[in-house]
Amino acid sequence: MGRAHAIAYRAARAIFDPSTQVTLEVLADATPELASTAAASLGFVRSTGDWRNLAADPQIDMVDITTPTRLHVEMARAAIVAGKHVYCEKPLAPTATEAWALVEEAEAAGVKTMVGFNYLKNPITVLAREIIESGEIGEVFGFHGQHFEDYMLDPNTLVSPWRFDPRSGDGVTADLGSHIISLARFLVGPVEAVSARRHTVLGERVAADGTAMRVEVADEVSSLLRFASGAEGAMAASWVAAGRKMALGCEVRGTKGTLAFDFERINELQLYTVGQPVGRDGFTTVLAGPAHQDYASFVPAPGHQLGFNDLKAIEVRDLIEGLTADGQAPWPDFREGWEVQRVIDAIIESDRSNGWCRIDQVA
Amino acid sequence: MGRAHAIAYRAARAIFDPSTQVTLEVLADATPELASTAAASLGFVRSTGDWRNLAADPQIDMVDITTPTRLHVEMARAAIVAGKHVYCEKPLAPTATEAWALVEEAEAAGVKTMVGFNYLKNPITVLAREIIESGEIGEVFGFHGQHFEDYMLDPNTLVSPWRFDPRSGDGVTADLGSHIISLARFLVGPVEAVSARRHTVLGERVAADGTAMRVEVADEVSSLLRFASGAEGAMAASWVAAGRKMALGCEVRGTKGTLAFDFERINELQLYTVGQPVGRDGFTTVLAGPAHQDYASFVPAPGHQLGFNDLKAIEVRDLIEGLTADGQAPWPDFREGWEVQRVIDAIIESDRSNGWCRIDQVA
Amino acid sequence: MGRAHAIAYRAARAIFDPSTQVTLEVLADATPELASTAAASLGFVRSTGDWRNLAADPQIDMVDITTPTRLHVEMARAAIVAGKHVYCEKPLAPTATEAWALVEEAEAAGVKTMVGFNYLKNPITVLAREIIESGEIGEVFGFHGQHFEDYMLDPNTLVSPWRFDPRSGDGVTADLGSHIISLARFLVGPVEAVSARRHTVLGERVAADGTAMRVEVADEVSSLLRFASGAEGAMAASWVAAGRKMALGCEVRGTKGTLAFDFERINELQLYTVGQPVGRDGFTTVLAGPAHQDYASFVPAPGHQLGFNDLKAIEVRDLIEGLTADGQAPWPDFREGWEVQRVIDAIIESDRSNGWCRIDQVA
Amino acid sequence: MGRAHAIAYRAARAIFDPSTQVTLEVLADATPELASTAAASLGFVRSTGDWRNLAADPQIDMVDITTPTRLHVEMARAAIVAGKHVYCEKPLAPTATEAWALVEEAEAAGVKTMVGFNYLKNPITVLAREIIESGEIGEVFGFHGQHFEDYMLDPNTLVSPWRFDPRSGDGVTADLGSHIISLARFLVGPVEAVSARRHTVLGERVAADGTAMRVEVADEVSSLLRFASGAEGAMAASWVAAGRKMALGCEVRGTKGTLAFDFERINELQLYTVGQPVGRDGFTTVLAGPAHQDYASFVPAPGHQLGFNDLKAIEVRDLIEGLTADGQAPWPDFREGWEVQRVIDAIIESDRSNGWCRIDQVA
Repeated sequence: MGRAHAIAYRAARAIFDPSTQVTLEVLADATPELASTAAASLGFVRSTGDWRNLAADPQIDMVDITTPTRLHVEMARAAIVAGKHVYCEKPLAPTATEAWALVEEAEAAGVKTMVGFNYLKNPITVLAREIIESGEIGEVFGFHGQHFEDYMLDPNTLVSPWRFDPRSGDGVTADLGSHIISLARFLVGPVEAVSARRHTVLGERVAADGTAMRVEVADEVSSLLRFASGAEGAMAASWVAAGRKMALGCEVRGTKGTLAFDFERINELQLYTVGQPVGRDGFTTVLAGPAHQDYASFVPAPGHQLGFNDLKAIEVRDLIEGLTADGQAPWPDFREGWEVQRVIDAIIESDRSNGWCRIDQVA
Repeated sequence: MGRAHAIAYRAARAIFDPSTQVTLEVLADATPELASTAAASLGFVRSTGDWRNLAADPQIDMVDITTPTRLHVEMARAAIVAGKHVYCEKPLAPTATEAWALVEEAEAAGVKTMVGFNYLKNPITVLAREIIESGEIGEVFGFHGQHFEDYMLDPNTLVSPWRFDPRSGDGVTADLGSHIISLARFLVGPVEAVSARRHTVLGERVAADGTAMRVEVADEVSSLLRFASGAEGAMAASWVAAGRKMALGCEVRGTKGTLAFDFERINELQLYTVGQPVGRDGFTTVLAGPAHQDYASFVPAPGHQLGFNDLKAIEVRDLIEGLTADGQAPWPDFREGWEVQRVIDAIIESDRSNGWCRIDQVA
Repeated sequence: MGRAHAIAYRAARAIFDPSTQVTLEVLADATPELASTAAASLGFVRSTGDWRNLAADPQIDMVDITTPTRLHVEMARAAIVAGKHVYCEKPLAPTATEAWALVEEAEAAGVKTMVGFNYLKNPITVLAREIIESGEIGEVFGFHGQHFEDYMLDPNTLVSPWRFDPRSGDGVTADLGSHIISLARFLVGPVEAVSARRHTVLGERVAADGTAMRVEVADEVSSLLRFASGAEGAMAASWVAAGRKMALGCEVRGTKGTLAFDFERINELQLYTVGQPVGRDGFTTVLAGPAHQDYASFVPAPGHQLGFNDLKAIEVRDLIEGLTADGQAPWPDFREGWEVQRVIDAIIESDRSNGWCRIDQVA
Repeated sequence: MGRAHAIAYRAARAIFDPSTQVTLEVLADATPELASTAAASLGFVRSTGDWRNLAADPQIDMVDITTPTRLHVEMARAAIVAGKHVYCEKPLAPTATEAWALVEEAEAAGVKTMVGFNYLKNPITVLAREIIESGEIGEVFGFHGQHFEDYMLDPNTLVSPWRFDPRSGDGVTADLGSHIISLARFLVGPVEAVSARRHTVLGERVAADGTAMRVEVADEVSSLLRFASGAEGAMAASWVAAGRKMALGCEVRGTKGTLAFDFERINELQLYTVGQPVGRDGFTTVLAGPAHQDYASFVPAPGHQLGFNDLKAIEVRDLIEGLTADGQAPWPDFREGWEVQRVIDAIIESDRSNGWCRIDQVA
């Protein structure tokens, strides 16, 4: 992900030609050697084997955190305390309590923040929101979404124990659940309550050192969702869904139409609106094109398709603009990261207590 | 649906050439005139304006009930008491308690029964079960299914009040929910507990007489599902899903693969199994063909497609064979109809009590 | 195919309830024994081991021919001479010359005729024609169509030598080419000229007796098409297209839109028209439903899907109505069968002469 | 396209980290002002209002030509004469004769060349070729391909007259036909002969100055293709295909399987091979992933999708490696550009002469 960010900074410059130029100043890694090699490869000016140096460095305006989740809080806090802006990968923190602390600290320090929910930057996602906000599908009452992948299906894959340590977050609930929750919030608004069920499918995995390891984090999670708007629905996430590689998608139903998409085809949206001519009605397959936000910056012709890295470039462009513009801020910020984390925590609590959990019951 | 059954009896004979021939003996309808007209059109020998005559008629071996759900129980009971076999459309009864009474009575009377869950007869459904039973996708741990249609979306459509009377069943939960629940049970086995949420989207509709009518039955329902096998998942149903016409489908995930289908394409199954060659793996689109159960009776070539009425013909063939064979019985029988109804009742109870409901907590 | 017709007669009665009832009077097969067995199974009153008896039988109004193509001409002629109407499977005859002779004889005898191009009866095909005729896609200028299947791909399958005898017709050109040509004519009108290329992929096959057999008929054929209307395009057919089971489809382009379909999904049409709102445009997936011709006779709800046998039932309904109505006739008739055959013959001639061939250059 | 190249140089560096760094040294445009603005925006060191300065500039190793086709020859020649390597957009030249002259001059001068057939760089295209070369689909005998877009459908769009001047190339035959021909050659090998039909659908367009303009170049073209290998098939191209945005695709049939793709979904390939288990066979949807060439350089996870600009980045990486490596050369080079142009010229000649045209009959 560090590499993806480095690519995105360059791409954002090449594609969007922002007035403010970003310098990739210092790269931190676990050792000076690793950092030095990575800096050379990714085009950073300097490198360090101690991430704490970033916070102390007067040349640095913003710290970009792409480490595992369990390290986010300490690193983000150090940057905030030093008055740096912070750009942090999702999910923001292992718990909503920790996420909230960062929100308060960042707001107190007056620094700007961003969390890397890159799929919200897809022109198709933005199109979906436009369709909803414009009322084209009427009043939204239903949402069903999921994020299915299969990268954790093989029980013999060697895994890093930290990744399955509940203190790092609840497995797929944090890793993919955060994406589908951020999408649900982006399209349908705040979630009010959840009734959820976590499922550890593979109770034993093989640690990186070859030893067997008991696992208790979720491999799958399903949750009913009650939205503040009165809409209802459900979400699911799985990292053991054989054959699914990037199946983040949803269906949003309103009184005048339905929209649906699945990001294994990230350039397509399915749209149905009532009132089409009799015998000619059906879902329309809308291909991403220059009529949609940000697409034309990449290629002037419709249907020519954006890729994953392009979404990240849009995200970095939003970051840079948000950091440099007066009175503006990047989004999704830490507060949004906390909101997503609250839903995750409510899901875990709902599963634990075997009942509904209101979001405002957790931190 | 009466007409669909009449077509199915003829089709079953033309296609399967069963040794036992069915005579469409007496057709009952609300008045003698309606019955007479329908009998002539559908090819029945006689007709009656009083359904009670069917039970009393010594020429009749089986009573076929295609009335609205609220009338099923009384009619089925009369037939059972008279020693007739009974073939009843789904859902069997408005409540599990009523369904169970029918089960006990039918078993006591020694008559055979069947409920019209026609989608279980689709060769693609049977293929899905074969794949699961054979272990081709390993141990099944996840199920997500839905049945979305949109025939109740327009609030200005005139509706029969009985259809929205909770005593007839809970709206979409009964009408479409019963299909997805029967499918879940067919593929993954008994459901043990549910956490559900019903949603009345359109609280006011227009009755057939043009007057406004308050509605409290569900337009949408979502439920977490805990299976006896340890599998987990969720189901959803909607009859207000704009643009969805026959979107009954599911995804079943196992330790070695995933299968998925959506009956807006009722001749296709998507199958992914682990162990495919690197760089060549993906979901395979299996088209229904002669290698699949019952397909070859319709057409000898693959990919030439069965339609909805063909599923009903298979169902009627199963009915006839089940009635006439020694030691056999048609399936799904009333007991299965009751099992499905228990899940429906548990969903309603879960929604009412705002918590999980075990299936064995309801009748 | 004989069985498919027998099923279709029953289905047409059950579904369309025509005023004129058809009696399946006499079934002819190669021997009295075969005929007797088939008659019992398919519900015919009588049977005969000599097809010539059909023409002589005063009880018979119409002869239905489902034999291999090479036998069509002799059988159809005998029926025509005896004053019977004739319903013949496609293609009508091995050559346009022979087809034309039948047309002249039938018209002289005043008997009615029909050729079984069943895919023209699909409600989706009729919808496509309605869209074109209404001008919804503007002036049509382009057509590309194909019919790909794979039932002749395996070189080790035992085959009947007659099927690969050029006197029976040119392999795939006759068998599947006739379908795509009839579709092209139905949607875009008369073909004026072709430039074609036949391709014998498997020059050696195994005859039914296990001996090797040289093959010269086409396994694949591609042809440019020049339509009388000024539209241009191409067609292709293959019976060695691995994995294709029923891939008969086309794309029709006009000045205001495009329509496309593929009958591996026989209930779907893709439609694009210009003038859709910016950023919301795309192809619409139209599912067959009650708004489309004949669909509602099968099932009242949209999206519930027709199958191959349903198309054949529509065809038989058209046949019966055409035979019995005053001043009407079934369609496609022998004249249309001849028109299709002329295009086939022109394709063969174009391939032979290595150049364009006008349709009016062949019989 | 100039902008796309500029983005690609940066992306290639960020993603592939090549040992040789490219400097964007001088940008030429029609006027000094335009050039200066573009250079600043795209990150070039210097700029010029006269492209001839590039050839004369000793700082420059390679000239990159993204002008309209009619200017390619003069510009490429000047660069070659000056001993510069040349990277030129497709198609290489308006005619094969002109293309061949460039090939001879470049080879005589010892400079390296490349033509921008970017779709050949898609990992899915490379996968298709690997599948064919490995024999996975047996001996290839059939190819049908097309490239359909709709950017020239609206007759009221103001157009540049040069684009419709036959001396610039034959409309869609050159613009999109070149893509599908290059793809056909890449996958199935040299084309030996064609029988083609060009079609000017809109004979009158509106020039940029608002005046009516007669048009004679092709809006659509269809051609039979005879390959040197013995394979047969056809291609089509249209820039007036309503609703098609990037429909470049093909189906390749072999004795053991079929592969197919359509670049409106540029990350997917459909693959069918014989020998799959009975009742489980079908086309597999292969999603681009790290197992496929170059994909992993962009993103480590499968299914996360590349976009159009990523293909261009791969192309530029190939260019840089080809220019700098000993004994290697970029591909597709001018010779390949000429080969594609020969097929285009043969198509035009075939249409003119109304008959087959062998490729070796044209320059």
